[in-house]
Amino acid sequence: MPASYAYLGPEGTFTEVALRTLPETATRELVPYVSVQSALDAVRTGEAEAAFVPIENSVEGGITTTLDELVAGQPLMIYREVLLSITFALLVRPGTKLSDIKTVTAHPAAQPQVRNWLKAHLPDVAWESAASNADGARLVQEGRYDAAFAGEFAAARYGLEVLEADIHDAENAQTRFVLVGRPARPAAPTGADKTSVVLWQRDDHPGGLRDLLGEFATRGVNLMLLQSRPTGAGIGNYCFCIDAEGHISDRRVADALMGLKRSCLQVRYLGSYPRAEVEVSDVDALRPGTSDEAFVAAADWVARCQDGRF
Amino acid sequence: MPASYAYLGPEGTFTEVALRTLPETATRELVPYVSVQSALDAVRTGEAEAAFVPIENSVEGGITTTLDELVAGQPLMIYREVLLSITFALLVRPGTKLSDIKTVTAHPAAQPQVRNWLKAHLPDVAWESAASNADGARLVQEGRYDAAFAGEFAAARYGLEVLEADIHDAENAQTRFVLVGRPARPAAPTGADKTSVVLWQRDDHPGGLRDLLGEFATRGVNLMLLQSRPTGAGIGNYCFCIDAEGHISDRRVADALMGLKRSCLQVRYLGSYPRAEVEVSDVDALRPGTSDEAFVAAADWVARCQDGRF
Amino acid sequence: MPASYAYLGPEGTFTEVALRTLPETATRELVPYVSVQSALDAVRTGEAEAAFVPIENSVEGGITTTLDELVAGQPLMIYREVLLSITFALLVRPGTKLSDIKTVTAHPAAQPQVRNWLKAHLPDVAWESAASNADGARLVQEGRYDAAFAGEFAAARYGLEVLEADIHDAENAQTRFVLVGRPARPAAPTGADKTSVVLWQRDDHPGGLRDLLGEFATRGVNLMLLQSRPTGAGIGNYCFCIDAEGHISDRRVADALMGLKRSCLQVRYLGSYPRAEVEVSDVDALRPGTSDEAFVAAADWVARCQDGRF
Amino acid sequence: MPASYAYLGPEGTFTEVALRTLPETATRELVPYVSVQSALDAVRTGEAEAAFVPIENSVEGGITTTLDELVAGQPLMIYREVLLSITFALLVRPGTKLSDIKTVTAHPAAQPQVRNWLKAHLPDVAWESAASNADGARLVQEGRYDAAFAGEFAAARYGLEVLEADIHDAENAQTRFVLVGRPARPAAPTGADKTSVVLWQRDDHPGGLRDLLGEFATRGVNLMLLQSRPTGAGIGNYCFCIDAEGHISDRRVADALMGLKRSCLQVRYLGSYPRAEVEVSDVDALRPGTSDEAFVAAADWVARCQDGRF
Repeated sequence: MPASYAYLGPEGTFTEVALRTLPETATRELVPYVSVQSALDAVRTGEAEAAFVPIENSVEGGITTTLDELVAGQPLMIYREVLLSITFALLVRPGTKLSDIKTVTAHPAAQPQVRNWLKAHLPDVAWESAASNADGARLVQEGRYDAAFAGEFAAARYGLEVLEADIHDAENAQTRFVLVGRPARPAAPTGADKTSVVLWQRDDHPGGLRDLLGEFATRGVNLMLLQSRPTGAGIGNYCFCIDAEGHISDRRVADALMGLKRSCLQVRYLGSYPRAEVEVSDVDALRPGTSDEAFVAAADWVARCQDGRF
Repeated sequence: MPASYAYLGPEGTFTEVALRTLPETATRELVPYVSVQSALDAVRTGEAEAAFVPIENSVEGGITTTLDELVAGQPLMIYREVLLSITFALLVRPGTKLSDIKTVTAHPAAQPQVRNWLKAHLPDVAWESAASNADGARLVQEGRYDAAFAGEFAAARYGLEVLEADIHDAENAQTRFVLVGRPARPAAPTGADKTSVVLWQRDDHPGGLRDLLGEFATRGVNLMLLQSRPTGAGIGNYCFCIDAEGHISDRRVADALMGLKRSCLQVRYLGSYPRAEVEVSDVDALRPGTSDEAFVAAADWVARCQDGRF
Repeated sequence: MPASYAYLGPEGTFTEVALRTLPETATRELVPYVSVQSALDAVRTGEAEAAFVPIENSVEGGITTTLDELVAGQPLMIYREVLLSITFALLVRPGTKLSDIKTVTAHPAAQPQVRNWLKAHLPDVAWESAASNADGARLVQEGRYDAAFAGEFAAARYGLEVLEADIHDAENAQTRFVLVGRPARPAAPTGADKTSVVLWQRDDHPGGLRDLLGEFATRGVNLMLLQSRPTGAGIGNYCFCIDAEGHISDRRVADALMGLKRSCLQVRYLGSYPRAEVEVSDVDALRPGTSDEAFVAAADWVARCQDGRF
Repeated sequence: MPASYAYLGPEGTFTEVALRTLPETATRELVPYVSVQSALDAVRTGEAEAAFVPIENSVEGGITTTLDELVAGQPLMIYREVLLSITFALLVRPGTKLSDIKTVTAHPAAQPQVRNWLKAHLPDVAWESAASNADGARLVQEGRYDAAFAGEFAAARYGLEVLEADIHDAENAQTRFVLVGRPARPAAPTGADKTSVVLWQRDDHPGGLRDLLGEFATRGVNLMLLQSRPTGAGIGNYCFCIDAEGHISDRRVADALMGLKRSCLQVRYLGSYPRAEVEVSDVDALRPGTSDEAFVAAADWVARCQDGRF
C-alpha cells in the first residue's frame, strides 16, 4: 500500500493540478478531502503522509482556513510549496449559449477573480456558491445550475463544454499551495528557501511588533509574507504568520528565530522549504555580515575573547 | 425623504442589530443590501448617506471583503464603529427535534464559531452555505434545510423555534462593524479614538515594514490592528491596513501620518473615530513627550531657534 | 571702533591663521585671548562680537574645553567653521643643531602629532608643556627651552629658525575651528550645511541613545560628529554633542529637532552653518521622502485629511 | 622578584591611592611611570604584569590618552576598575598665607575641578601646568611655585602644609581607574560586571551608529559609556569606545558582541570585569527574554526545530 497524500478535493480542482506538478506524487496515492481541515487532520491522525492545501493567492491573500489550521492544534510542518497561475473557464452543458445562462456557480474564492467578467458579460446572472469549483462543475452536469467557473481541465471530467477560457480579473492571478506533514527534519537547504513561523507577542506596547520585525531586519532577513490571524483571545488579539527568506540552517535565520523565541510569548516553527518562485537577485543580495561565514567567524571571535586569545 | 443608511442585509442579521445601536439610525431609513460591495457602492454613488458593514471579528480577523473595498476604488471614510458580541442560536421549524436534523445552514463566517458545537451534538449533519444567516433561517422556513444557525432575534421574523441558544466556540466572540461614508471632516476627537490607514511600501528591503511601524512607535502611537491585503500586483505584494490609537487631530498621530506619507509609496486615510471599546488604562498611558503640548512646545522651540531667540 | 573678534591666542598660532581665512576679518579687530574660556566669555559679556576657537581635530577628536563651554553657561551659537591642515615645524634659535636639543616644548595638543617624529629623531629629549605653540616658540626665543613645535609661520615672529618642517604623525591632520557668537538668526542655508546640538537623555534604558539617534535616522539626516561630554552630575552621566548634516531651515532637520526636543530631557541648539568641507556626493544623496517638498506635501496631505478633502 | 604593576606616577598621586585599594597590590611591586603611554608600554613589553591608569572622570569624561592607547597598538585588556572620589587640597610651603600666593600649579586635569574655587579665592593668581599633581607639589617644595593643588595625602610626602582641603567644583567628582594587562581569560563574572569594546563602523549611512547601538538594545544590554575617538583617518572619522553592562560570559552580552562583530568593520574587545560601583536596581532589572536561561532555551528550541523534534 503506497503512502497517501491528502489534498483539498474534489478531483479536478486547481489543487489537484498543482499537486501533480510534484514528482513524488507519481509514487503516492492522492486522496481528495472535503476541506482543508479534514485534509490536515488526516495528516495529524497518520491517515495520510502529507496534505496539499492552498495557503495564499494573489487576490485573497493568505487563505485563512489553512493558516488557522497551521497556527493552532497539533503542530504540522510545511515541506514544499507550489505556485500555480489561475485562470477560469466558463463551463456549460454542451449546446448552452451565453444568453441561456441564468445561474452560475463556483467556489466563493473564485468570485473576486471573475467579478468583472460577470459584470461585463452576464450582469443579471444569479450567483450560487459551490463547495469547490469542481463541485460546481458537477452541479452543472446534474443540471442544477447553468454554468460553472472552474479550471479548463474540469470540462472533460464532467462532460462540459468550455464557453469561454482564460477568465481572470487580476493580472498574474496565482495561488500558492503547500505540502504539509508531521514535524520532522526540514528539507535540505537549496540556496533559495523560505522559512515560515507564527509569532505571538509578549505584550502590546508602541513598537512591540516593530521590535519583533527588528529581529529579522537586524540579521538582514527579508520578509515575504506577514499575515495577522486572531489568537482566539478576543477581538484585537492577533498572532502573526510570517514567511521569511532563507532556511533555518542559514545562520542568520536561526539567529533571528532565537531572538524571536526569546522576545515573543510563543513562536511556532512551520518549516523551511524551497521557494517555488525565485528571483535570482533576491537570493544573491546578502547584506554584509549576514553570511554563514560571518556568523561562524563572529562566534569564533567571541569564543576567543572569552578565552583571552585574540 | 430621510437620508438612508445602507447595510449588509438581509434584515434580521447581526449587522442590523449592531446598526440599530447607533442613535442616529432613529432618523434614517435603513436599507439592506446583498453584499458589502453593493452597500459601499451605494455610498459611492450617493444613493446612501453611509453604509454599515462588518470589518473584523474575533474568530476570522479582518473581514477581507470590507477591507478590500476600502483599500481600492473611490476613497471612503469610517465615521463610527460598533462592537457586538456574537452568539448563535440553532433555529428550527416548530416541532423539530435535535435528532431530526440532517442538514444545517448558515453563512460560511458562522462555521468556525459553531464548529465544535456541531462536532459534539450533530457530528453527522450536512452543512450547506447560505448567503447570510438570515437567509439560512428563511431557507429553513421554506423547508429546504432542517436547521439554521443565526441570531436568536431571527427566530421571530421567520417563524422558527430556538432549539439551542448561546452557541459560540470562542469565548467573547465579537464582531466589529463600521459606518462608512464619503470623505468629509472626521468626527471630533473624544479622547479615546482610533485612526485607520492603508499603507503601501515604497520598496521591500529587510526592515521596510519595521521602519514604517517605527513611524508610529517613534511618536508613541499604539497599533490596534495590522492586516495585510494583496495589492493586486501579484502574489506576495501586500499593502497594510492599520488601526492606530488616537485621532488625526492628536499631534502625535498627525506627525506619524506625515512621516508615513513621506516614507510610503502611498497612504490612504480611512478616518478617525471614537473607539467602541475603551480600556481606560490604554487611553491614559501617553508616553512622555508625545502629548499635544509637547508637540506644540517643540515646534515653538524650533521656530525660536530658527529666529535665534532662545 | 570696529567690532572685534576674540580668538584663542597668542598671535601666531594656527587659530589666528585659520581665522584670517574668513573674509569678514578684514573689517574686524582680532583680539587674542589666553584661553577658550576667556574668548567665549568675551562674547557672552559683549566685549567681543564673536570668538574663534578650535572645536575638533583629527588627532584628539572633539576639543573638550570648547565643547564644555558651549554645552554649559549662557547659550552661544556657531556661525561659521574653518578647516585647517596642521603640520608642525621644529623651531630653534639660529644655529641650533638637532643634536643640541635636550628640551622641546609645545602645547600638549601637539604631542600626539609629533610623538612618532620625536621617537625617531629625538628619543631622549625632555618634553615640557607650553600654554600654546606660539608661547612655546617665545620660550625658545627666551632660551628657556631648546626647541619648539609650532606652525612654520611662527618662526619669523619669534626670530627662530625652521630646523624641520612638515612634521605630523597622522596623515591629513586637520583642525576644525568655529566662529561663535550670541544667539541670533542662523546663517542662511547654502545647500551644504551642518547643524550642531547638545542632547541630554530623559532616562537611561537599553536603547535610550539609539532611540535619540533614531530621530535623525527616521528623517534621513546623517550624523557627522557624536561626542559625549560629562553633565557634571557624576561619573557616567553624559550629554551628547552632535553635528548633523543639513540646516535647521531644512524641513528634515527641523523635524528631527522637534522629535529630539520632545524625547530628550533637554536640547541645546548650537547653530546651523555652512560646512567647511563638502563632498558633493554627501550633499546630493537625499533619501526619498526627506526633501523639503516631501515634508510640505505630507503636511498638506494631513491637513486635507483633517478637513476630509482628499 | 615579585611581579610589578606599572602606574601613572609619580608617587603620591590619586592614581597610587586608588591602586592601593586593590588587595593584590600587597604582593606586587608598584612602579610609577611618567605617562599613561609608558605605563601601558611596560605591559606590552612584558616589563610589568599590569598597568593602572585613569580612564574616565566626572569632570573631563573619558581620559583620551588612555582610551587612545587602548584603541590602537598591540591589544590590551582591562581586568579591574576602581572608582575614587577626588577632592583637592591647596598645598603650600609651611608658613605661606593665601595672600602670599602668586602662582599655583597642578596637572591640567585638575583645572576644571578647582576653577571656581580659584575665581572666588585667588582670582589673580597665575596658573602653571605640571606634569602631575604630585610633581606640582614637588615644584612647590623646590620653591618654583607658591602653591599646588594635589591630594591631601601628598602634603606629608613633599613637606608641605594643607592650606585648604576638600576643594572640588563638581559635586561627587570621581575618577575611574582601570587595571590593564595583556590579553588573557577575563575575570570570572560576579553578577555585576561591565564589558568594554571599541567599534569601528563599516559605513556611514543615516542610522549607522543607531543600528550598532541596536545590537545592544535588542539583547537588553544597557550602555554605561559611549566615547567617540578619532580613528586617525582624518577629521570626522571616529571609532566608539563603549562600556556595556554585563560580562562576556553572559549570553546576552556575547550575543550582542557577535552581532557587532558581524556588523562592524572592526571590533576590539577590551575585557569584562567587576563594576566598581553597583546600583542593585541596575543589576536586577533584566529584560524578559534576555537571561542566560532564555538564550539557552532559544538555542535549544532552534536546534530541535532543525531536527524536526518539537
